[in-house]
Amino acid sequence: MTHSDTIVAPATASTVSALAVVRVSGVDAIALVSKVFKGKNLSEVPSHTVHYGFIHHHGEVLDEVMATVFRAPKSFTTEDTVEISCHGSPFIVQKIVEALIAAGARLAKPGEFSLRAFMNGRINLTQAEAVADIIASENEMQHKVALQQMRGGFAGELQALRQQLIDYAALIELELDFGEEDVEFAKREQLIDFISQLKFHISTLINSFKTGNAIKEGIPVAIIGKPNAGKSTLLNALLNEERAIVSDIAGTTRDTIEDVMHYKGFSFRFVDTAGIRETTDAIESIGVEKALEKARNASVVIYLFDVASTSVQELLTEINSLNAVDAIVTPVANKIDKTTWKKTAPFTHIPNIQFIAAAQKFNIELLKESLYQLATRNSQLATNNPIVSNIRHYEALVKASEALAKAQSGLTNKISGELVAFDLRDALEHLGSITGEVSNEEVLGSIFSRFCIGK
Amino acid sequence: MTHSDTIVAPATASTVSALAVVRVSGVDAIALVSKVFKGKNLSEVPSHTVHYGFIHHHGEVLDEVMATVFRAPKSFTTEDTVEISCHGSPFIVQKIVEALIAAGARLAKPGEFSLRAFMNGRINLTQAEAVADIIASENEMQHKVALQQMRGGFAGELQALRQQLIDYAALIELELDFGEEDVEFAKREQLIDFISQLKFHISTLINSFKTGNAIKEGIPVAIIGKPNAGKSTLLNALLNEERAIVSDIAGTTRDTIEDVMHYKGFSFRFVDTAGIRETTDAIESIGVEKALEKARNASVVIYLFDVASTSVQELLTEINSLNAVDAIVTPVANKIDKTTWKKTAPFTHIPNIQFIAAAQKFNIELLKESLYQLATRNSQLATNNPIVSNIRHYEALVKASEALAKAQSGLTNKISGELVAFDLRDALEHLGSITGEVSNEEVLGSIFSRFCIGK
Repeated sequence: MTHSDTIVAPATASTVSALAVVRVSGVDAIALVSKVFKGKNLSEVPSHTVHYGFIHHHGEVLDEVMATVFRAPKSFTTEDTVEISCHGSPFIVQKIVEALIAAGARLAKPGEFSLRAFMNGRINLTQAEAVADIIASENEMQHKVALQQMRGGFAGELQALRQQLIDYAALIELELDFGEEDVEFAKREQLIDFISQLKFHISTLINSFKTGNAIKEGIPVAIIGKPNAGKSTLLNALLNEERAIVSDIAGTTRDTIEDVMHYKGFSFRFVDTAGIRETTDAIESIGVEKALEKARNASVVIYLFDVASTSVQELLTEINSLNAVDAIVTPVANKIDKTTWKKTAPFTHIPNIQFIAAAQKFNIELLKESLYQLATRNSQLATNNPIVSNIRHYEALVKASEALAKAQSGLTNKISGELVAFDLRDALEHLGSITGEVSNEEVLGSIFSRFCIGK
Repeated sequence: MTHSDTIVAPATASTVSALAVVRVSGVDAIALVSKVFKGKNLSEVPSHTVHYGFIHHHGEVLDEVMATVFRAPKSFTTEDTVEISCHGSPFIVQKIVEALIAAGARLAKPGEFSLRAFMNGRINLTQAEAVADIIASENEMQHKVALQQMRGGFAGELQALRQQLIDYAALIELELDFGEEDVEFAKREQLIDFISQLKFHISTLINSFKTGNAIKEGIPVAIIGKPNAGKSTLLNALLNEERAIVSDIAGTTRDTIEDVMHYKGFSFRFVDTAGIRETTDAIESIGVEKALEKARNASVVIYLFDVASTSVQELLTEINSLNAVDAIVTPVANKIDKTTWKKTAPFTHIPNIQFIAAAQKFNIELLKESLYQLATRNSQLATNNPIVSNIRHYEALVKASEALAKAQSGLTNKISGELVAFDLRDALEHLGSITGEVSNEEVLGSIFSRFCIGK
């Protein structure tokens, strides 16, 4: 599959910086850049070499640049590609893009370079999606999962299993061609076993999504408790310490770190903090139903209480009311500076309990470590097993698994080959959609349009 | 001059984008990058070549990257340089910089790459400053002036003239060595002529600064007029039309375009618009003194009036009160849609007058063109003469010119050679400070610290 047009786009952020890169890809990339580049004749230089020169337009010099030539197929898109490194002025970048458009290139859509890399077979769909995830990654774990996926991840094994399923399906389809003759090319027992194996493999991937999603979207944490327990103070203590270490390198800015705490490579996302922020502790008020709703949206619930004014019995009753929620609940005793050891001692036997003084930022690090331990203790992170973090992949896996279950049950109940073939085709389609072996323009459009421009 | 340490910094903006570049420069650049780069052995590859590989740190892969090797002296800094092109994630960029710091590099200060290029003789000081100006340029003219300066600009000719002056000064110093012997190595008439020539050259450059500064900082325009003349409507009309065309390329954002209009490659900066914006036309009120003050800060003054409710005599009186101001005044008749041709006709003979209907955006383009014509008609833009746009250069030229005037007058009045020599040394120092032939750390620090990181 080749594209007849050549695309151009800025590949770096459009703000003032030391340098910026404009990327050109397509059959005419080198010829088009040569029209505006004064320097060495780029059509004669070897691949992967860099050349000093000037970009001209309308007889005027636009900038002093370095042009890097990548010859097909040894480029990201597998097409001829030129990367122009210019001074980091949005004005200059725009002018250079305009010059290249005047020379015959077309402005690329967001993600179009990656789309070409996918269409030209350089990467599969999960790898293309991983590139976008890598760019968006904000912590170690997001980065690790995305990088694993970009380097192949679970796609390779899945593709091999899908290929085996294709072979079985083909045999069944072949039987159907023989119509009434009642032949059986595909050994039924063998196929049932294979489907079991495939389903198990898929279920492992499906189960990994809870972890993968927590990594990608952050682990949702709810802070609930009575008025005046110190919830906003705790939220600030957890977030402020984070903020102080966000920017190690001068000039580094983060888009929005609001209400997200990064710890040991994980993001903890505090849910529904608006209520906590809006009200001061003194006047805050949250009904039991509201508290339960918050808890339901979380993986970890911090139940914060004032240890000086709460009895063990009261605490146990309150925690008990959270039992209906499918989240890990950690009771956190606040204001230990306001009370005595004797008063706090009876609480020590309550599971997962932490003792802090939020206003003094005392034991906040310990609480973070405890959140980390609670959130990750059941996860697949200890292993190096592949993790599914993309909801599109998750949904396709669930659908494939459902189709396989139907096929399996059909085979067990010896229903007609036609119906089994239908279910197998259904499963194949869902599995194929993950890596893009089966794809349609609409799906591709929706995936790649979310990419950066120039990617 | 060589530096013993190797510096590293991100060279692209720290926001999510398709790709980002980390720059490493110094004697150990290639060796340091090789410690973290898995791919080809970079110490064996030729200069100006690009290599695919992975950045590793603490046994983990950080990213899939392209590394470009520039060998000394064929790099921006003239040192060995490696540019690492990675995925455009601020997180990854920070990790790669950290890995390189762990490998032995030092985080570069803002402008430190350019400082090295200057210290190593690759560029002079005006060229280094031009690089910063190019990056910051927002329109054609700023860009053109900065680019001209980067490619040599007025510095070359000035350096040649300064060299001649050095020769004369040396002869005079030599005379001083002979003490009482009353020799005269430097022909006085010749020297006086040369100083005249040099002063003329410098005065041309000094005069160009008004244009250069207008280009760099924008041409200051004041809009004044009576309450209800339509000043805020006009300001919006002038700015809104601009805003609509600011961003041709998706993803392009401009830092602050507030109250700046770009037209035909120039910036027009509307001064003191706070008053106009704060008040609605109906209640706005500005005293005569305030209006004059605004006008004094502008190169062009738009005197806006409601043509339907103003007589020619009133207008002439009002414009006359602005005569004290050293700015071009253009009367602008507003609300022509609210009146008749008969009423507007008597105004047509007033010089520079424009007729508009701001609320209908009628004739706004014509007004822009007129502002452009007025602002540029006396400028040096028509010629290709060098333009001084940097206030540091301007101030040094003024001081050099003053010192030359003193030397010239001393020579004419036949004062002692010692005093002449002193004035010549003074002039030489100021001229030398422009291109950096004479420099001190403090000045360099103040110049380069304003650069981007990674530049």
